Amino acid sequence: MTRVRVAGVGLTRFGRTPDRTGRDLFAEAALAAREDAGVPREDIEHLNYGNFMGAFAERQGHQGPLMAEAAGLSCPATRYEEACASSGVAAREAVKSIRAGECDVMLVGGMERMSNLDTAGVTEALASAADELYEVRAGITFPGAYALMARAYFETFGGSREDLAHVAVKNHRHALNNEFAQYQREITVEGALDAPPVAEPLHLYDACPITDGASALVLVSDEYAEAHDLDAPVSIAGTGQGGDKMALQDRDHLARTPAATAAAAEAYADAGRGPEDVDVAEVHDCFTVAEVLALESLGFYEPGEGIGAARRGETAIGGDRPVNLSGGLKAKGHPVGATGGSQLVEMTRLLRGDHPNSDAVSGARVGLTHNAGGTVASAVVHVLEVVE
Amino acid sequence: MTRVRVAGVGLTRFGRTPDRTGRDLFAEAALAAREDAGVPREDIEHLNYGNFMGAFAERQGHQGPLMAEAAGLSCPATRYEEACASSGVAAREAVKSIRAGECDVMLVGGMERMSNLDTAGVTEALASAADELYEVRAGITFPGAYALMARAYFETFGGSREDLAHVAVKNHRHALNNEFAQYQREITVEGALDAPPVAEPLHLYDACPITDGASALVLVSDEYAEAHDLDAPVSIAGTGQGGDKMALQDRDHLARTPAATAAAAEAYADAGRGPEDVDVAEVHDCFTVAEVLALESLGFYEPGEGIGAARRGETAIGGDRPVNLSGGLKAKGHPVGATGGSQLVEMTRLLRGDHPNSDAVSGARVGLTHNAGGTVASAVVHVLEVVE
Repeated sequence: MTRVRVAGVGLTRFGRTPDRTGRDLFAEAALAAREDAGVPREDIEHLNYGNFMGAFAERQGHQGPLMAEAAGLSCPATRYEEACASSGVAAREAVKSIRAGECDVMLVGGMERMSNLDTAGVTEALASAADELYEVRAGITFPGAYALMARAYFETFGGSREDLAHVAVKNHRHALNNEFAQYQREITVEGALDAPPVAEPLHLYDACPITDGASALVLVSDEYAEAHDLDAPVSIAGTGQGGDKMALQDRDHLARTPAATAAAAEAYADAGRGPEDVDVAEVHDCFTVAEVLALESLGFYEPGEGIGAARRGETAIGGDRPVNLSGGLKAKGHPVGATGGSQLVEMTRLLRGDHPNSDAVSGARVGLTHNAGGTVASAVVHVLEVVE
Repeated sequence: MTRVRVAGVGLTRFGRTPDRTGRDLFAEAALAAREDAGVPREDIEHLNYGNFMGAFAERQGHQGPLMAEAAGLSCPATRYEEACASSGVAAREAVKSIRAGECDVMLVGGMERMSNLDTAGVTEALASAADELYEVRAGITFPGAYALMARAYFETFGGSREDLAHVAVKNHRHALNNEFAQYQREITVEGALDAPPVAEPLHLYDACPITDGASALVLVSDEYAEAHDLDAPVSIAGTGQGGDKMALQDRDHLARTPAATAAAAEAYADAGRGPEDVDVAEVHDCFTVAEVLALESLGFYEPGEGIGAARRGETAIGGDRPVNLSGGLKAKGHPVGATGGSQLVEMTRLLRGDHPNSDAVSGARVGLTHNAGGTVASAVVHVLEVVE
């Protein structure tokens, strides 16, 4: 079985660009990835593409062939939709295809256009990642759902709004150097505590913003990388996926995300690694509490102990295992269908040493990305490694 | 590399059931497939699921985990969206996963709920499979797009509305015995010619109906089938996928579907077969002309010669290579996201000998399914074989 290498990566700057079409955004990221890889377009055999809410945002389904064309490719394309984990799943299936010898060179990535809708429209579209019959009709949208999870966490394990504020402050600080981030601006714990409530205990700075953006990666087999003398020092060494009941009411515990635990277990086993080997991670912090739940599900902390990680500085620049050095979904932004791919782009750059925050993890060999769908009814985890 | 076997199949009766939810439909098909397979639910490792317009029809994205739960499974699930080829792509990726040794047992299938929308709503949702910027805004919806393709065909190769009427008459006749078909009723050439126009030269009986329905298959590895002594006499021996420019205006020729040609070439090579080996086929006749284009793209006829196949009886019961013995999308119905899976279900039953039309192809060893997205900007082809 061949090893899968990241040959090139590309991103748009995340932010609000309501005048740019989805195909425009994805083309920019795809071109950047191809240029970074130095791979001719003719060599790309398939596009695995993630998008979540294109039907709402642009009345555009069937985006696979559309985006292949936008990227200048004439190969087949497949769209994956797994809510906020759409491009994580797309990347996972690409890893499997290359390992199986089906393809030597694939483009993977995702795109979301959101800011052309008004806030009510975005909220409605995002809500389609929850159970329409049993959650959305009862009035639950995502801030409310994650608020329930935060409350359950606090009641089970303790913790406070201030602990969560430290997550937001950390991720904003991490984004300061990231030229692709939506927000390159510091916030304070006091500012976060004083921000208007969204759904108690979550306030404005506990939530990620509404973002337009795209991500792309060129993945290749070891054999292709060597035959073409590519500079591709990072491999995707492990991949895993987990699932859970869709509606929160059907879960055993609101303050656990077993889909992420299962995805991590599979990815660790696949890579022959464990949580203790991970030097740096990008996790799905759509809300601050989601980062805490991720830290615990990934095995970095015991249940109940992840809540203090940001406050103690352990997940910050200078800490033992920095988390979300990109700024995370919180400060870098969350163009839903692009996020899983974007995490892989950021991690590749961190491990290659050409990320503005690479100095914070110099010598890092193993990175992890965690991409979640809905209230973690879906999760995808990847383990990346520097190739020896 | 292991061989992939079809262990069990399930369908809902196709038709108009606006009061049934999507999860209700898929659960019925999935349960039928599991019962047919005799495989315990715990053994199913992953669901590959196709759905196209759930965002429009039920405001429901993220259907992977929702449908896994509806099917009584606790495994991860992935949603594929490739317009009308959604469950064809889902099945293709499942075949690859089993061959790669990632899974031994998978559930694949799809669902579409359409009739709860009004006709304008369905038309708008279906239009999202075309290019929103350059086709839909110019006024093109799918009947218009396929009418352009039919006109281009007539102008290039000749042919008439009467030739197309024979396709519709044949497929309605084939559906007479199919208890899962939306229409079990004969039509006549005269009736088809006299039916109201939709988009010239296509009239009412040239178009498939609006349909609710679901399909499911249990796919297993050879090793699993043998270890559990399963009665699974049909294998998926070849799979292929092709892509094309999204908008008709960008194509080289409106009366050719090169995405299907590419998909067929890949599937034939994969199976070690050619068009001459195919005893029976299910093709994507969303409009009558689409069946003609498929026959030619699949290599059954030279360009310009497929138009007379139904009139000459060659693709009918009693002909050399019957096509759409299920009734096709035309008479059986076209619940978009379920169709690719449904074609595999019908073909499995035809080859196993337990389809009501199996007698028409007794002794058949090799079957082909052709599932297309949009105006064939995507295509997936599978070759099925009776296991020796």
